[in-house]
Amino acid sequence: MARLVLAGTERSIERMEAFSDAVFAIAITLLIVDIRVPPPDGPQPVDIAAELLRLWPSYFGYVFSFLVIGVYWANHHYMGKLYRRTDHVLNLLNLVFLMCIAFLPFPTRVLAEFIRDDANRQTAATFYTIGLALPAGAWLLKWLYISHEHRLIDRRLDPAFVRSLTVQYAGSFLLYLSAVFLTLIDFRLGLGLDIGLTFYYLLPPKPPVYIDSEDAKAAATRP
Amino acid sequence: MARLVLAGTERSIERMEAFSDAVFAIAITLLIVDIRVPPPDGPQPVDIAAELLRLWPSYFGYVFSFLVIGVYWANHHYMGKLYRRTDHVLNLLNLVFLMCIAFLPFPTRVLAEFIRDDANRQTAATFYTIGLALPAGAWLLKWLYISHEHRLIDRRLDPAFVRSLTVQYAGSFLLYLSAVFLTLIDFRLGLGLDIGLTFYYLLPPKPPVYIDSEDAKAAATRP
Amino acid sequence: MARLVLAGTERSIERMEAFSDAVFAIAITLLIVDIRVPPPDGPQPVDIAAELLRLWPSYFGYVFSFLVIGVYWANHHYMGKLYRRTDHVLNLLNLVFLMCIAFLPFPTRVLAEFIRDDANRQTAATFYTIGLALPAGAWLLKWLYISHEHRLIDRRLDPAFVRSLTVQYAGSFLLYLSAVFLTLIDFRLGLGLDIGLTFYYLLPPKPPVYIDSEDAKAAATRP
Amino acid sequence: MARLVLAGTERSIERMEAFSDAVFAIAITLLIVDIRVPPPDGPQPVDIAAELLRLWPSYFGYVFSFLVIGVYWANHHYMGKLYRRTDHVLNLLNLVFLMCIAFLPFPTRVLAEFIRDDANRQTAATFYTIGLALPAGAWLLKWLYISHEHRLIDRRLDPAFVRSLTVQYAGSFLLYLSAVFLTLIDFRLGLGLDIGLTFYYLLPPKPPVYIDSEDAKAAATRP
Repeated sequence: MARLVLAGTERSIERMEAFSDAVFAIAITLLIVDIRVPPPDGPQPVDIAAELLRLWPSYFGYVFSFLVIGVYWANHHYMGKLYRRTDHVLNLLNLVFLMCIAFLPFPTRVLAEFIRDDANRQTAATFYTIGLALPAGAWLLKWLYISHEHRLIDRRLDPAFVRSLTVQYAGSFLLYLSAVFLTLIDFRLGLGLDIGLTFYYLLPPKPPVYIDSEDAKAAATRP
Repeated sequence: MARLVLAGTERSIERMEAFSDAVFAIAITLLIVDIRVPPPDGPQPVDIAAELLRLWPSYFGYVFSFLVIGVYWANHHYMGKLYRRTDHVLNLLNLVFLMCIAFLPFPTRVLAEFIRDDANRQTAATFYTIGLALPAGAWLLKWLYISHEHRLIDRRLDPAFVRSLTVQYAGSFLLYLSAVFLTLIDFRLGLGLDIGLTFYYLLPPKPPVYIDSEDAKAAATRP
Repeated sequence: MARLVLAGTERSIERMEAFSDAVFAIAITLLIVDIRVPPPDGPQPVDIAAELLRLWPSYFGYVFSFLVIGVYWANHHYMGKLYRRTDHVLNLLNLVFLMCIAFLPFPTRVLAEFIRDDANRQTAATFYTIGLALPAGAWLLKWLYISHEHRLIDRRLDPAFVRSLTVQYAGSFLLYLSAVFLTLIDFRLGLGLDIGLTFYYLLPPKPPVYIDSEDAKAAATRP
Repeated sequence: MARLVLAGTERSIERMEAFSDAVFAIAITLLIVDIRVPPPDGPQPVDIAAELLRLWPSYFGYVFSFLVIGVYWANHHYMGKLYRRTDHVLNLLNLVFLMCIAFLPFPTRVLAEFIRDDANRQTAATFYTIGLALPAGAWLLKWLYISHEHRLIDRRLDPAFVRSLTVQYAGSFLLYLSAVFLTLIDFRLGLGLDIGLTFYYLLPPKPPVYIDSEDAKAAATRP
C-alpha cells in the first residue's frame, strides 16, 4: 500500500532527464544570442575587423560558460547513474537547479560587456561569480537530499564513496563562495578561482564504488 | 474495424509528451532573454551595481514564472499517468494549452518592467494574472475532455478521485479569474492570490486512487 | 549486399523525428520573442493598457502561426506512421521542410507589424502567404518522393488512399499559391483563404486504408 | 575490475545524442531570430517591399547555414553508427564540437549584414569562413580520437574504410582553412569554396565497410 501511494508522486527519471537535457541545451545555445556587432548603416562608419576583435571578452565568456554548463550536464548524467528513483521534493530541487543553470547567460553577458569598463568590472565579476555559485549551491542541496541516509541513491553504494562526493560538492560550493569574496578584493583572483574550479571538473568524475563486487559487476553492465 | 479507424487518428502519447517537454523547456529558458542592462558605451555613464539591484522585479518574475511553468510541467506528467490514449481533439486541446504556456514570458516581461511605474503597474498586474489564468483554463478544458465519462482516462480510476481532480482544477481556474478581478481593486491582492496558488501547487499532487487494489498494484509497478 | 549498402545511408526514423520535434517546438515558441512593448523609461510616457490593446495583430499572428506549426507537427507524425524507412534524399527533403517551418516566425512578425500600415499591409500579407506556401510546397515534395511507386511507404497501403493524399497535398499547395495571388488583388481575400486552409487541417486526418484487412489489423495495433 | 572503473565514466551514447540533437535544433532555429525589418513607426517611412528584397543576403545566409548545420547533424548520426561506446574525453570533444556549431549563427549574421558593405565585406567573409572551419576542425579531432587504433569504433570496420574517412575529414578541414586564406585574396573565391564543400556533403555519406561479410550483415540489420 505504501508502494501504491508512492506511485502517485514518483515520476520516471527519464522524463526529468529529457526535460533537463532540453533546458541545458537551450541555456548553452542562448549564450551566442547576445553577442552583437553595430549595424552597418548606423550613424558612424563601422570597422568590422576592429569590432570583432573588441568582442574578445564575449568569446571568452561564451567558451567559459559553455564549458561550465556542459560540465554540469555531464555531471547531471553522472549523478543520474547513482539513483533510480525520484520523488516530488527532488523534482522541485532539480527545478531550482535548472533555474540557476538557465540564469547563467545573463551574468555571462554582464561580465563580457563590462570587463573593460574600469568603473564596473569588479561588480560584473562579483555578479558573474555569484551566478556560478548559485548552481553549485543548488547542486549540493540536491545531493544532500538524495544521499541523506541513502534516501534515493543505490543502496549498494559504498558509504565512504558517498561521503567523498558530499565532501567534494560541499567543497566546490564553499570555493565558489570564496571566489565571490575574492572578487571584492581583486576581481582577477575571483575569476582565477572560477576558472580553476571549472578545469577541475573537466577531469573525469570518480567511478562509483559499490560495497559488494558481485552487485558492482551487475551495475557496471547496466546500460 | 472501428479499432482500425481509430488507429489513424490516435497518436502515441510519447511523441506528444516529447514535443510538450521541449515547449516547456524553451518557454522556461526564454524567461532570461529579456532581462537586460544598459550597454557600457551608451550616452550616460552606467552604474552596473545600481542597475543590477534595480532589476529585482525581473529576478522575481523570472523565479516566479519559472516555478509556474515548472509546476505545470510536473502536473503535465502527473496527468499523463492517468491516461494511456490520445485522440485528435486532445492533441488540439494540448496545443492550445502549450500556446498559453509559451505566451507566459511576454506578460512576465510586462509585469517586471512596469511594476515600479505608478501609472501602469495595475494594468501590468492584471495582464500578468490573465496570462496565468489562460493555461489554468486550457488545463481545465483538457481535463474535462479526457475525464468526461472516463473518455480517455484509465477505466480503473476511482470516480470519486476523478471528481476530486475536476473540483480542484475548476477551483484553481476560478481562483485565477478572481485574482484577475482582485488586481482591478488592488494589484497586491491579485498578485498575492497568484503566489498563494503557485505555492499550493508546489505541494505533491494527490496519488491516484484505483477502484480495485489488484489493478492498483499492477498500475503501481508500471514504469 | 544491396541491403548492406543501404544500411550505411539509411537512418532510423526515431532520430529524424526527435530532431524535427525539437525544431517544431523551438519555432513555435520563438513566435512570442518578438512581441514587445515600449520600455517604461523611454522619451515619452507609456500607456501600457493602450499598448497591449494595440498589439492585437501580434496576438492574432501568434495564435494563427502557432496553430499552423502545430498542425504541421501533428501531420508530420501522421505521415511518419505511413513509412518505416528513410534514406538520404528524404533526410534532405525533410531538412528543407524544417527550414520552411523555422522561417515562419519572420513573416509572422512582418505581418503583425505592418497590417495596420496602409502603405505596406498588402506586401506584408503577400509575404506572409508566401511564408505559408513554402512549407506546403516542401511537404508536397516530401510526399511525392516517399509515395512514388511506394518507394518508402508501407507496401500494404491502398493505392487509392495514397492517391487521395497526393491530391490533397497538391491541392493545398495550389490553394496557398492562389492565396498569394489573391493578396495581390485584396489582402483580405488571401488571408481569408489562409485561415480557411488552416481550419480545414484542424479536422482529423484521414485514417489510413490498407489493402488487406489482416495486415491492417496488425498495423492498427502497432504502437 | 577494469570494466567497473570504465562504468563510472562511460555514458550511454543515447543521452549524448539527445543533447546534441537539441543543440543542433536550437542553433539551426536561432538563425531566423536576427533577420529584422525596420519598425513601421520609425522616424522615416518604410517601404516594406524594398526592405524585404534588401534582405536577400540574410535569406541566403539562413539557407546556407541551415544546410551546413543540417548536414553536420546528419553526419553526426552517421558517425554515431560507427561506435557504440563513449568516454569522458569524447564527451568533452563533442562538447567543443557543439560549441562550434552553436557559434555559427553569429558569423552568419555578420556576413549577411556586411556583405554589401564595400569596406567590410572581405573581413565578414573571412570571419564566416573561420566560423565554418571551426566545427570542421573539432569534427576531425573527434574522429582522430575515436578511430585511433580503433579506440572506440566498431572493431569489425575495415581499416581501409576507416583510413578513407580520416583522409576525407582531414581534407575537408584543410580545404576550409584554404578557404579562409582565399577570402583574404578575393572573398568570392573563399565563399565559393565554402559552397562547394557544403554541396559535396549533401551527397550521401559512404556506406560503412566491414571486414567480414557475416558480421556486416548482422550490423546492417541493426536498428
